[in-house]
Amino acid sequence: MIHIPRLCVIGVGLIGGSLALALRRAGIVDEIVGCGRSEANLRRALELGVVDRYQTDAATAVAGADVVVLGVPLGNVRAVLMTIRDALDPGTIVTDVGSAKWCVIEDVEAVFDRMPAGFVPGHPVAGTEKSGVEAASADLFQNRRTILTPLAQTDPQAVRTVTALWEFAGAEVIAMSAEHHDRMLAATSHLPHLLAFGLVDTLARWDGDEDLFQYAAGGFRDFTRIASSDPIMWRDICLGNRKALLDALQHYREELGVLTELVRQLDAQGLERVFRNAKDVRDRYRSSLER
Amino acid sequence: MIHIPRLCVIGVGLIGGSLALALRRAGIVDEIVGCGRSEANLRRALELGVVDRYQTDAATAVAGADVVVLGVPLGNVRAVLMTIRDALDPGTIVTDVGSAKWCVIEDVEAVFDRMPAGFVPGHPVAGTEKSGVEAASADLFQNRRTILTPLAQTDPQAVRTVTALWEFAGAEVIAMSAEHHDRMLAATSHLPHLLAFGLVDTLARWDGDEDLFQYAAGGFRDFTRIASSDPIMWRDICLGNRKALLDALQHYREELGVLTELVRQLDAQGLERVFRNAKDVRDRYRSSLER
Repeated sequence: MIHIPRLCVIGVGLIGGSLALALRRAGIVDEIVGCGRSEANLRRALELGVVDRYQTDAATAVAGADVVVLGVPLGNVRAVLMTIRDALDPGTIVTDVGSAKWCVIEDVEAVFDRMPAGFVPGHPVAGTEKSGVEAASADLFQNRRTILTPLAQTDPQAVRTVTALWEFAGAEVIAMSAEHHDRMLAATSHLPHLLAFGLVDTLARWDGDEDLFQYAAGGFRDFTRIASSDPIMWRDICLGNRKALLDALQHYREELGVLTELVRQLDAQGLERVFRNAKDVRDRYRSSLER
Repeated sequence: MIHIPRLCVIGVGLIGGSLALALRRAGIVDEIVGCGRSEANLRRALELGVVDRYQTDAATAVAGADVVVLGVPLGNVRAVLMTIRDALDPGTIVTDVGSAKWCVIEDVEAVFDRMPAGFVPGHPVAGTEKSGVEAASADLFQNRRTILTPLAQTDPQAVRTVTALWEFAGAEVIAMSAEHHDRMLAATSHLPHLLAFGLVDTLARWDGDEDLFQYAAGGFRDFTRIASSDPIMWRDICLGNRKALLDALQHYREELGVLTELVRQLDAQGLERVFRNAKDVRDRYRSSLER
């Protein structure tokens, strides 16, 4: 059993807010302190019952907290860590929800000189194109996975606490190296988002066809849904995970070069081979993708 | 009011089968004759009540038909036209459902020497990754658009009949030039399909990561759904509409080159500008996309 007298959530948006709601419902938290730069957002979080009280100063917010969750965009992690560094109690467990993990580890090491034993890097893989505390839901992590990427020096007890916390929120928790996480997520999440943003931007600027999107069918709607995601958050993810993303992007651009040649040369057999392989793989993994 | 004593559907798959079901439900057809190469599929169509009877020979199937619908993949249109050319009654209206329109017009002109007045090129924009008569539904065209691309010599009465037919099936019908259609569909349908097939193929071959897809979230699932589409059908569409597709593909590859440089140079502002523009456009058109 796990019991958290005081949880502090810095960045009460979709992820931080949903985690707060889920843990409150699970009954394992006594008090939830919200923190963020926008007081209007924090007031809304209070109204929605997501937090019990709030602070706009992060150093004040983390004082006396047993667990601190960083729910801010990747680009703000380092500044928040700088603010809370000297205010954290020695035993406080800190975890984050960033979609890229090496850049968070680098930020932590830069601010604390070395990785503190009580910091557990984490990533709930629960994407949606929505954002903000208004979209928060206690069910967001149900049947989703949270990936933790502890280092050798991470305290096993801290990992157990953060694992339990996500399990109480409904997620299945797995651990892997930050490198493996970043590579996998670059391929299945960061690259697709970049591609979708890029496609909508391309079409919008192609020739200003006002009615271009009017006749688009369901496939286009699904394909471009992730282009409605938060631009700031995804800018930070793409830059934070740039090494793995650039690698994935290079493979993809090579593939598009091959596909272009297949179409240009009317290579029906070659084109069908690629399409069939893709369909076979997609169909094979459909059960895990659509669970 | 419209009344079709005998409708012949060549290619009783998702689209042809759904149209048959919708028109039967609308009560405007007396008899539906199915035709195709696979007798097993035709028997299934008969069992499902999609057709009243069937023929495996297209020339026999079209004899005495008032309206003939070509529901075959684009790559088979010319061969089917060759088969039925001399068997069509003089007054028979012929229409197709191909996702690219210039290549169909070229096929018709090649087989008939010139575009017959009774041929109305058409395209129901009702995509789904499913295929086959088993997936056919009388509701497939509800709230969808069907685009007709008649030429100057097309008989207005034939256009009216085909328009009425699609309206009875639940679709909104619009007319435009074949060039405009092909360009719009290349951008919003054919390119996205090529990109999705290409992404899944790339990831599957990247390094054989067995668990790559296991941790993919909802965004990836939606983004790659169209990669489960029929490889043969999409091979034919990409080749049939290759001119417009290659043009769209070139624009997109240039965009990916720009995005690669933005990430490589850590250009946060430039990346955010692209993402924000894409989100704004996607959000603006969301209402029409998600209707």
